[in-house]
Amino acid sequence: MSVLTTEPGATPTDEEPPDSGERHRLTAITGLAALSLDAMASVAYGPEAIVLVLAAAGAHGLGFTLPVTLAIAGLLAVLVASYRQVIAAFPDGGGSYAVARTHLGRRTSLVAAASLVLDYVLNVAVAVTAGVAALTSAFPALHDDRLWLCLAVLALITAVNLRGIAESAKAFVAPTVVFVGSVLVLIVVGLFRSAPASTQAAAGHASAVADNATAVGTLLLLKAFASGCSALTGVEAIANAVPSFRVPRVQRAQRAEVALGAVLGVMLVGLSVLISRFHLQPVDGVTVLAQLAEASFGHNWAFYLVQFATMILLALSANTSFGGLPVLLKLLARDNYLPHVFALKADRQVHRHGVLALAVVSAALLVFSGGDTNTLVPLFAIGVFVGFTIAQVGMVRHWRLERGPGRRGKAALNGLGAGLTGVAAVVVTATKFAQGAWLIVIALPLLVAAFETVHRAYVRIGERLGLGRVPEHPHRERSVVIVPVSSLSRLTSEALTAAASLGDEVRAVSVCCPDPEDRAALHALERSWAEWDPGVPLIRLTCERRSLGRPIAAYVRAVTASEPATRVTVLIPETEPERVWQRLLQNQRGAVVAHAVRRETDAVICRLRFRLP
Amino acid sequence: MSVLTTEPGATPTDEEPPDSGERHRLTAITGLAALSLDAMASVAYGPEAIVLVLAAAGAHGLGFTLPVTLAIAGLLAVLVASYRQVIAAFPDGGGSYAVARTHLGRRTSLVAAASLVLDYVLNVAVAVTAGVAALTSAFPALHDDRLWLCLAVLALITAVNLRGIAESAKAFVAPTVVFVGSVLVLIVVGLFRSAPASTQAAAGHASAVADNATAVGTLLLLKAFASGCSALTGVEAIANAVPSFRVPRVQRAQRAEVALGAVLGVMLVGLSVLISRFHLQPVDGVTVLAQLAEASFGHNWAFYLVQFATMILLALSANTSFGGLPVLLKLLARDNYLPHVFALKADRQVHRHGVLALAVVSAALLVFSGGDTNTLVPLFAIGVFVGFTIAQVGMVRHWRLERGPGRRGKAALNGLGAGLTGVAAVVVTATKFAQGAWLIVIALPLLVAAFETVHRAYVRIGERLGLGRVPEHPHRERSVVIVPVSSLSRLTSEALTAAASLGDEVRAVSVCCPDPEDRAALHALERSWAEWDPGVPLIRLTCERRSLGRPIAAYVRAVTASEPATRVTVLIPETEPERVWQRLLQNQRGAVVAHAVRRETDAVICRLRFRLP
Repeated sequence: MSVLTTEPGATPTDEEPPDSGERHRLTAITGLAALSLDAMASVAYGPEAIVLVLAAAGAHGLGFTLPVTLAIAGLLAVLVASYRQVIAAFPDGGGSYAVARTHLGRRTSLVAAASLVLDYVLNVAVAVTAGVAALTSAFPALHDDRLWLCLAVLALITAVNLRGIAESAKAFVAPTVVFVGSVLVLIVVGLFRSAPASTQAAAGHASAVADNATAVGTLLLLKAFASGCSALTGVEAIANAVPSFRVPRVQRAQRAEVALGAVLGVMLVGLSVLISRFHLQPVDGVTVLAQLAEASFGHNWAFYLVQFATMILLALSANTSFGGLPVLLKLLARDNYLPHVFALKADRQVHRHGVLALAVVSAALLVFSGGDTNTLVPLFAIGVFVGFTIAQVGMVRHWRLERGPGRRGKAALNGLGAGLTGVAAVVVTATKFAQGAWLIVIALPLLVAAFETVHRAYVRIGERLGLGRVPEHPHRERSVVIVPVSSLSRLTSEALTAAASLGDEVRAVSVCCPDPEDRAALHALERSWAEWDPGVPLIRLTCERRSLGRPIAAYVRAVTASEPATRVTVLIPETEPERVWQRLLQNQRGAVVAHAVRRETDAVICRLRFRLP
Repeated sequence: MSVLTTEPGATPTDEEPPDSGERHRLTAITGLAALSLDAMASVAYGPEAIVLVLAAAGAHGLGFTLPVTLAIAGLLAVLVASYRQVIAAFPDGGGSYAVARTHLGRRTSLVAAASLVLDYVLNVAVAVTAGVAALTSAFPALHDDRLWLCLAVLALITAVNLRGIAESAKAFVAPTVVFVGSVLVLIVVGLFRSAPASTQAAAGHASAVADNATAVGTLLLLKAFASGCSALTGVEAIANAVPSFRVPRVQRAQRAEVALGAVLGVMLVGLSVLISRFHLQPVDGVTVLAQLAEASFGHNWAFYLVQFATMILLALSANTSFGGLPVLLKLLARDNYLPHVFALKADRQVHRHGVLALAVVSAALLVFSGGDTNTLVPLFAIGVFVGFTIAQVGMVRHWRLERGPGRRGKAALNGLGAGLTGVAAVVVTATKFAQGAWLIVIALPLLVAAFETVHRAYVRIGERLGLGRVPEHPHRERSVVIVPVSSLSRLTSEALTAAASLGDEVRAVSVCCPDPEDRAALHALERSWAEWDPGVPLIRLTCERRSLGRPIAAYVRAVTASEPATRVTVLIPETEPERVWQRLLQNQRGAVVAHAVRRETDAVICRLRFRLP
């Protein structure tokens, strides 16, 4: 550790110590594991959502599965391309918040931030409940304990993330690889079959296909498209968390983003092809992914492996929020929209307060929803689409201000993406309004209002502190140090020594309550004090009520009133116990006095910890 | 509030301000309500306990109810007389602890204290569960929620006692009067009947009388006596809490004690007479008191009133512990057997820490026993008998040392009482050993060991503090004040002013972490500092890991090592927010620095709270 003194008037030389936090940051691969699980896991419910909507139009409607999925894959490509540019343009992270703040104004950036925050929090709750729901459908005996299971999974993920994002990523690489690998193998094997290997799982369950087929209209296709867009949640996370990558940050993040898009697109389209090939129909109580696994592999160990990997990945996809949200909270804190504690970084690149805040709010959501998926899912995905739309509109503006080649094409691409996601946002909100989307419509403005309130408070505090202005010169005042004493010991001697070093005048005070024991003790103290003769007066403060701190605070106020040019300091001596349990033996008088003085006066409070010799 | 200065050498004049805490203390009547509910409530289960044991000998055994009860009443009279003397001899309270400490040695006094503590705590748990059990037998639908009901009742009693013992007493006078009144009326009315008015409640329940009557032997009578002695728990409480009474304390406490003995004795004997008169037999599921109420009043509103009053009084008899235990804890703390916090008194004569400690331990017991009476009752009453025995043996010693008239008679009385309660203690422990009394046999020595450990620690601390010896004279050392700064504002100016007033030399330090943002901010600070030129050097401390407090603590250690005759002080400035919620906006740096400095150095830590202008 080096020390460099800056004398007034000297110019400091520039030092560039190596940033040794790099090994706690992410590579492209670990970045995928830390931040993309949300998007990956949506292959478990994305195709299912599409198929469920199309099933309302009977078998004819189901025929549109592949086209709708291709449209979603197209939108995915547009989004990945957009965010690749966002990463390059905003290497400090923040995703749509950063884009909006630069190009669309303050209010819009807050709306983007609020929608991201809401969605990250909901993602944790939905992911954990979905994973546990998958577990309890395999083991129905656990159904009653699902809330405790959810909280346990949440605690596990929180603990891993408190150790650090790189640690969480390493921990989660294996399940990701297993899941992605098994789905890709599923697709390849299925392409070589002409008929399902087995339909055992779906047998005996009620079909979800409607009997009276409604016509396949634009509205139905739009709804299917919007439902399937839930597969796109989580694409933003990598762009939010660019600072968490190793140098060169932008390139690694871009690589991770493109890899995510590629893998996700292949999985979605591949599964959709298989759905068409096998003429799969949605069934109550069995997921489409389960049916596909069975159709490709047959009802054997591979089928169960896919189920198990899906369950684990669903639960772990909460990790995306833990990767993306704390960085966003830090940016908001840096811009004074959130308390500055969220910008504090502890060791190992962990945004501890952000992680803990997310864990607490998610736990509250879990308890409130009782571990039940159906309560939370309708709220999901709206916030992310709002974020997508704002980001791409911002990027359109970005390209208008740029001068490089191909900017018209890029702007058009972003405009198209913005249009598509905007439509998706509106459709999802409208279709899920009664089921709970109204909560989002209320919560979002409330969150924005909270950001504005915090911002106003900081601006006001900054003004009153005179931040940015050169303040008055410091000057020296006469100081009086007041030392509360209750008995005569080495501690008293040490306290008076410290006080004499700090102040021009020292006064010892002792509080006497109208209790015979107390009065006797005080008389004894005064006699010993007179014998000791330390050169410091002992002042007796009486009190009517049995309080310790108030008389001292009142005395401090009296001194300040009678001698205005004096700075009053209260020195509170305490022993430092040898062993930790002995803290219980301390009688808390110091804390009582400090509390009263802090609340009622402006005196400086000094705590002296005396280690017993 | 008056201030009296004691200059060294002057003799202080004696002041005797009126003790205005009197109105928060107890009169004889309110003393009964606050401290005797335990004893009063035992008429609900005392006669029942006797009758249940005697029923093993059939109807013949039941005939011995009245003689056994008269014996218990006689022991009650002896106890009341003893404790009347204890109150006079030990007006500081403490009951058997005080007696033992003066006359029987330290170890015995700790055994007395430990047994009292255990029994007070158990009393709370048993009383609350018994009251709630009475409630749930009237309303069986509440049975599943009984643990929450117990905790709610505990919270209510704790809250009332936190307001003050006099307040609790006033709150509980009414139920006491209703209960005592109804029982007395029950006895009077019953004496005028020759046969039970109704036996409706007992009909349909299985009789608890044994078919094959065993002979009525001495052992059976002893067991019945010992069981009935559970009615005597709570007689000690008034003697424990003498300081809580108004002046003249001794006379008021004695009046309350005698009143308690009289009322309790009349109730016990009266109920016993009625049991014999009506030839009552114990029945599963209906209490003896219920049967008596029905026999006297008939199955009408008066019957239900007695039930209801019993239920309330059982629950409230926990209040006795809240009255007696905190005073005992205070005495133990004063003698250094418990942490001194228990001796702290807040406003209104409330021993806050004692009340809270009792509430917490009782809540733990309740949760552990699941709100189930049967788990806890076997442990009950052993501690109190140990206390009774120790107290009376001590009083025998007391009279041997006295010179007054009639001391032989008084000593003989106490000796008899000691013998009787000693026998009761042994019998109860032996009969309930397997059911849980072994827990007490283990817990008591553990508690005594804990007291000794605390005492040893205090003695050691006192030696190292040099308590009782005249310490060194204080002297003045050169002081260096270190002020951590991160930005330039009014706060910085104020901090440097305070530091200049406190120290001979002031140094400002700023921690620079290897982060580009941090380095830029520090450069800006150093430039502004050079412009400002406050006359105080700004020292840059670098750190490798992202911590704020460690570099400052390391610098403090370096200064102390290089300049040994200097006292180093760290001044931490913080803004005092206008509104309470704005405390969330503070960035916790001050706390981080203070924590690191406190843990790693011996420097004095000063906190400056700056109210924004």
